[in-house]
Amino acid sequence: MTKINNQDENQEAQTPLQRVICLLHKYKLVEGFVNLQEKPDQALTQSPVQKQNLAELQCLLDKLHPADIAYVLEALPLEDRLLIWNMVKAEHDGEVLLEASDAIRETLITDMGNTELVAAAEQLDADEIADLAPDLPQDVLEDVLWALPITEREQLRAAMSFPEDAVGALMDFDVITIREDVRLEVVLRYLRRLDELPDHTDQLFVVDRDEHLKGVLLVSRLLVSDPETQVAAVMTKEMVKLHPNDNAQQATYAFERYDLVSASVVDVDDKLLGRVTVNAVIDFIREKAENEALNLAGLSEEEDLFAPVLKSVKNRWFWLAVNLVTAFIASRVIGVFEDSIEKLVALAALMPIIAGIGGNSGNQTITMIVRALALGQINTDSAWKLIAKELGVSAVNGLMWGGIVGLFTFIIYQNASLGLVMTAAMILNLLLAALLGVLIPLTLSKCGRDPAIGSSVMITAVTDSGGFFIFLGLATIFLL
Amino acid sequence: MTKINNQDENQEAQTPLQRVICLLHKYKLVEGFVNLQEKPDQALTQSPVQKQNLAELQCLLDKLHPADIAYVLEALPLEDRLLIWNMVKAEHDGEVLLEASDAIRETLITDMGNTELVAAAEQLDADEIADLAPDLPQDVLEDVLWALPITEREQLRAAMSFPEDAVGALMDFDVITIREDVRLEVVLRYLRRLDELPDHTDQLFVVDRDEHLKGVLLVSRLLVSDPETQVAAVMTKEMVKLHPNDNAQQATYAFERYDLVSASVVDVDDKLLGRVTVNAVIDFIREKAENEALNLAGLSEEEDLFAPVLKSVKNRWFWLAVNLVTAFIASRVIGVFEDSIEKLVALAALMPIIAGIGGNSGNQTITMIVRALALGQINTDSAWKLIAKELGVSAVNGLMWGGIVGLFTFIIYQNASLGLVMTAAMILNLLLAALLGVLIPLTLSKCGRDPAIGSSVMITAVTDSGGFFIFLGLATIFLL
Repeated sequence: MTKINNQDENQEAQTPLQRVICLLHKYKLVEGFVNLQEKPDQALTQSPVQKQNLAELQCLLDKLHPADIAYVLEALPLEDRLLIWNMVKAEHDGEVLLEASDAIRETLITDMGNTELVAAAEQLDADEIADLAPDLPQDVLEDVLWALPITEREQLRAAMSFPEDAVGALMDFDVITIREDVRLEVVLRYLRRLDELPDHTDQLFVVDRDEHLKGVLLVSRLLVSDPETQVAAVMTKEMVKLHPNDNAQQATYAFERYDLVSASVVDVDDKLLGRVTVNAVIDFIREKAENEALNLAGLSEEEDLFAPVLKSVKNRWFWLAVNLVTAFIASRVIGVFEDSIEKLVALAALMPIIAGIGGNSGNQTITMIVRALALGQINTDSAWKLIAKELGVSAVNGLMWGGIVGLFTFIIYQNASLGLVMTAAMILNLLLAALLGVLIPLTLSKCGRDPAIGSSVMITAVTDSGGFFIFLGLATIFLL
Repeated sequence: MTKINNQDENQEAQTPLQRVICLLHKYKLVEGFVNLQEKPDQALTQSPVQKQNLAELQCLLDKLHPADIAYVLEALPLEDRLLIWNMVKAEHDGEVLLEASDAIRETLITDMGNTELVAAAEQLDADEIADLAPDLPQDVLEDVLWALPITEREQLRAAMSFPEDAVGALMDFDVITIREDVRLEVVLRYLRRLDELPDHTDQLFVVDRDEHLKGVLLVSRLLVSDPETQVAAVMTKEMVKLHPNDNAQQATYAFERYDLVSASVVDVDDKLLGRVTVNAVIDFIREKAENEALNLAGLSEEEDLFAPVLKSVKNRWFWLAVNLVTAFIASRVIGVFEDSIEKLVALAALMPIIAGIGGNSGNQTITMIVRALALGQINTDSAWKLIAKELGVSAVNGLMWGGIVGLFTFIIYQNASLGLVMTAAMILNLLLAALLGVLIPLTLSKCGRDPAIGSSVMITAVTDSGGFFIFLGLATIFLL
């Protein structure tokens, strides 16, 4: 484990970010109003005070954990970010790149020369290089591949071959293997000959001559057992074995349920390939949750907070376009009923209420179902029960909110039949929302697509167009 | 660590859930069409085949990890859930309750007698009982408190005193402490006298006579170091120290950044109180992410998939009511312009497009800002930069999509000025969305409220009412 900030050493209780920003300000604003655009390569003209501030900043950066540096870089506007990035020690470059989020990593890599990039990548393990690989220029990647020892090169090739959501992409190769026929005392002596253990070593892997996994020796068992015992006597045979092509999401559930720190990864013949550790799992969980939140809000991918305007536009255009298409369709549905609206203009003011509540209710249902699908908790039996339940909830909500809306309409417009049409339209649109709120994610999932992506947009489209159609249709039939 | 399912032992590659459901079906459907409402207390009339199926089910349940049992219970409709719950071994009750999600736990606890509950709670550690406490009946909790040894009772009282989002609520008390002036060999002998180490023991805590934390001895250091060395020579003094009143969210970031397995919790005098382990952190991250997703979709809290209809209605009414209020307001904004709509009915068909795209764009901005706020990456300086950037994105999007929408309007309605009004309204509403998309979460956060809750509803309300007002207002001024 690398250096960790002792929180007590910082008496002002400032976060690393606040300290960096404070020093940056001091550096840039010294001697009255200095031009904010000043660049570090103008250092020749710097005053002694500025030089001292810069030295203080350098000293702070040298002490920061790479993850903290990545965090600070992420929070800084592009110009300041590159100033700080150029001050980071070259030996930390690789780890900072690894810790930075995709959008930030891109801006940092763009700023680096090829030799710098190769040097940075070479500081990392094979599985870590594989994480960076998609963002590296092709020629850098080839240089790195050739510079690696043959085993690591093979590992890197293997790690790069797995899709992002497979266990193989989370796997690392830092496993300590032992044989089952030795005494614990021998294991302890073997460990003592190592300089350090890989991070997150909570278990040693017991393998036979052909690397087949026989069991695991928990470090906690090793520590409490008599050194004269044989490994075979204290090793655990019941353990979680992952396969590199398993779904990574399922593996994270195993970590959560069984409170794992690490788990073995084996091939079809039970040969040990590597392991997955809990820190990779946490990163995966966080990234997955964030991506879902971003997609729900209509962002295609994570966005640099200070991305140039056009880059942001590119990241956001897709879901805006989808939204525009559904809005056009809803608009045409209303267009069909323009005659009715002309005769009874109150319809125009009332129709967004029906559509809005329908969308909200549909999204409530969708969220429940998507979560249950992700956990694998829905089968054919329960699907029918769920539809029945959601229709029941919608019927109750429809009567309740529909009643209120109907009353409101009656009071405002002094028109009882208009109120009844509102109530009926609300009930019908909520029932539609419930039915499709269950069916849309189930269908997407049956077709092998991720129900978390796009379900929300689809249900809103249905409840908008459907709501307008139901309400204006009922009004045309019963009121005109 | 408790029992873990060996995935290989199950040749049919079924999940625990699938196996339980399959056995449940066999049990219930044996001998043709047996009444599905059959209850386990009618067991007296069971056929030998049914008894055998029941025994097989019992055998499967006995082998399952408590977390798997909780998962299976969650996926079953209420009736089946209680049937299975009554078959779970009493000694697993406590752990299953702990693993189950809040909504499911409630249904299980309702089904248990007070003595059963006390027995279940007594199997758990103080920090685990504290997690269950809010769901336990008051008299059960008191019985449990009195049955505990004095140290644990104090721990339980302490653990219960922290709010859910404080580090204290994640803390456990399973720490192994050592002194700095002993040799590692003594530490190893001391550990060997224990039956087992607490889960997730990756470090031993070095304290002085008054329990002040001096450093930590990493187990991995212990294993690779010469047993003759003193603890003081190999212990780490730079470590993460949490305080029980720290924000739990910030602590999870420390685990993520520094790849921790456990971290110490100390009081203001640096006295060791307990530790936080990575499994508690994972549960917290997952729960937090889920709650955010639920709130965004308009659900107040996690809902049992098979909750009774009225219970679901209760969980969902709040956000529907909020939505209804904002829809009413938007409806009244339209109502103001009824004369204009009567004169130019196309306005009614076009206005939802302006409101819809504005809402979508506003939510994109909100999502970016809420995430950056959660990470503490926004300060006064960057706030202005962000507003400028978001306004820029909106201007580009407004010109682009507004242009398309204007063209579409011109083609459909053969009315150039109507098209221009659409374009102008789109640009203005997107600018409004950008401005408030930054200001709403920043203001909520300044007022000490969680910007993740309610921001999305507020921005949609603004872009709906605002969009209608801008579009209908412009139309009234320029077209009529």
